[in-house]
Amino acid sequence: MQQTSPGSLLTALRADPPLVQNITNFVAMNIAANVLLAAGASPAMVHAEEEASEFAGIARALTINIGTLSAGWMKGMHSAADAANRAGKPWVLDPVAHYATNFRRQAVDALLAHRPTIIRGNASEIIALAGGTNRGQGVDSRDPVEQAQSSARILAKAHGAVVAATGEIDFVTDGERAFVIEGGSRFMPAVTALGCSLTCLVGALAAVFPTDPLVSSVAALTIFAVAGENAARQADGPGSFAWRFLDALSALDGPTLDRQARIRAA
Amino acid sequence: MQQTSPGSLLTALRADPPLVQNITNFVAMNIAANVLLAAGASPAMVHAEEEASEFAGIARALTINIGTLSAGWMKGMHSAADAANRAGKPWVLDPVAHYATNFRRQAVDALLAHRPTIIRGNASEIIALAGGTNRGQGVDSRDPVEQAQSSARILAKAHGAVVAATGEIDFVTDGERAFVIEGGSRFMPAVTALGCSLTCLVGALAAVFPTDPLVSSVAALTIFAVAGENAARQADGPGSFAWRFLDALSALDGPTLDRQARIRAA
Amino acid sequence: MQQTSPGSLLTALRADPPLVQNITNFVAMNIAANVLLAAGASPAMVHAEEEASEFAGIARALTINIGTLSAGWMKGMHSAADAANRAGKPWVLDPVAHYATNFRRQAVDALLAHRPTIIRGNASEIIALAGGTNRGQGVDSRDPVEQAQSSARILAKAHGAVVAATGEIDFVTDGERAFVIEGGSRFMPAVTALGCSLTCLVGALAAVFPTDPLVSSVAALTIFAVAGENAARQADGPGSFAWRFLDALSALDGPTLDRQARIRAA
Repeated sequence: MQQTSPGSLLTALRADPPLVQNITNFVAMNIAANVLLAAGASPAMVHAEEEASEFAGIARALTINIGTLSAGWMKGMHSAADAANRAGKPWVLDPVAHYATNFRRQAVDALLAHRPTIIRGNASEIIALAGGTNRGQGVDSRDPVEQAQSSARILAKAHGAVVAATGEIDFVTDGERAFVIEGGSRFMPAVTALGCSLTCLVGALAAVFPTDPLVSSVAALTIFAVAGENAARQADGPGSFAWRFLDALSALDGPTLDRQARIRAA
Repeated sequence: MQQTSPGSLLTALRADPPLVQNITNFVAMNIAANVLLAAGASPAMVHAEEEASEFAGIARALTINIGTLSAGWMKGMHSAADAANRAGKPWVLDPVAHYATNFRRQAVDALLAHRPTIIRGNASEIIALAGGTNRGQGVDSRDPVEQAQSSARILAKAHGAVVAATGEIDFVTDGERAFVIEGGSRFMPAVTALGCSLTCLVGALAAVFPTDPLVSSVAALTIFAVAGENAARQADGPGSFAWRFLDALSALDGPTLDRQARIRAA
Repeated sequence: MQQTSPGSLLTALRADPPLVQNITNFVAMNIAANVLLAAGASPAMVHAEEEASEFAGIARALTINIGTLSAGWMKGMHSAADAANRAGKPWVLDPVAHYATNFRRQAVDALLAHRPTIIRGNASEIIALAGGTNRGQGVDSRDPVEQAQSSARILAKAHGAVVAATGEIDFVTDGERAFVIEGGSRFMPAVTALGCSLTCLVGALAAVFPTDPLVSSVAALTIFAVAGENAARQADGPGSFAWRFLDALSALDGPTLDRQARIRAA
């Protein structure tokens, strides 16, 4: 294993579990916390404006997801993002279905002003965020990840962020370097909030290796892809896939991860 | 398969997955989204007053559930119901435990004024909504569905809505025509929020066949009943039933559904 | 079985399922409701300030958990605790990560003024609540339950409450009498919100046997410990443990519980 391979970062995460603050949506909260626990991280769902900022000073990374946004929560998101920036901690933005309503578009614009370290979305979200025309419907992506690749590069350069466009094939770039990660399973889009959970895992890996958020993002996407592949082998449908995925995440170790990883420069 | 049989409506749903907006409770959000995904629909949990109305213009159906109601959410419910009505889209009301507190009773009265297309509740909820004396305790029904049948007919006529009273045996009526659907499993009331999830599926089928919400409701109840029966065959308890139910929903196809359906006019 | 053994209390709960009002966090809501249903109780997640107090008059016990607290919810918590006290019904406090932020510390202080019948926390929470120095990080405990035992005794005397410090080994005391309960599984801390769910079960057993909340708490902890042990036998990871735990809870009967119970006076 290389020192910054996905496997070594997973091993490092397990050796010193990072506390990750997640401001996520009501649908994702339980499964995202279980995904972080299975991976070995320590999740905390803390969003109230009264404490979001103070907690961001304690946590090693922050993730913000606008899935079930309301005006009250926006305050907690802004103060947490500010606090993470002040403390030099990485934070990840998940712009769920930001193209669907004015409220979401404005919320994402305001959050982008806080300069997220990493942006993670599905193809439709990344294309629309870069100003393109997408075919997203509600919260499900209908655009192939391949088409999102140029959008991701544009977005990364415009915002000085790492951008991950995930789907059947994952693509991640900092505007210069870029990687494609293969794996996963056809069951993944049929389990709600797995993408949101991946955003939280991206935060956990960024906490482990804040030096290079592109490298840490590759690790997070690879962990998801390999665990998804392993879980799918015995799953009969989305119900059995969901719990097998948590078992597979928990059973994954660093050397196995590196052996199964399918990453290539793009 | 007849053109409006449950099986053909399920096939139509899969061919063109409807986007369904659900304003539901915190307990139900995750399982309801997973139920819709397993059935083949595209769920969106959008409730904030800032966007609920705009989103109702995009979605093909709306469902409203008062399970964990608060004053702030009432605003989103009202503007979404208004927007669905203006756009001529079906909407479904789930009056969870509406008899338990004044706050709930008033909320349901106010929502009924928006003339829901379909009302789905358990026997206790339907009996109480029609003005009868029920034995409901908290959110669990303690009244047999049989007793709810005359209440459902009264309610349907009073509100010009389709009314579904579900439980061991399901009953659905538009005040004139009525059907009984058999199936399901004794494990279903032991899994929280399955009734709430059924409400969302009723919305999805109403989106697929808005012409006749009685027919689309029969389809939704039949899908649930057959998937429940199939899942129960291998389940050892409520925990294993829950994920097997999602697998069974996902594995169900139109012809199998029609073959297993137990529907009779009442 | 003794009349107040865990097994007889479980049998009594099944014979007359108590309605339990839970003001809990967004992560816990679904799994906590499923845990109560599997045990045989009737859960209701009712927290809005508009109805929390009225509902506390209907329910047989109340549980309050500050996991995803916000200012609006505090009002519902206070009025519900007041109503439970006025009606002479037991209520349980779960001070999730109360040491993490000022907002939480103040919230817990204010709730303690309502004199909870029972306080349930992990070792870090109980140590910090008694004024000690803990090693908690976010919401996960890093202190052994053994160290929490003297803190629990201090806390119980100071607040006239039963205090349960749970973890690998559970400890529960009313300040005079004390018991240790063994069992459970290493998978339990890897499933999010199982501790929060246990708090709700403590409430359910307090409803069944309000005369002696120490005895009812011992029963709740023993039910969890034995079901956890039984579920772990076939689990391969946290994902498969979670649903097997619900099956095991549901399959447990009074005599089996008493046979497997490992309780000793401390």
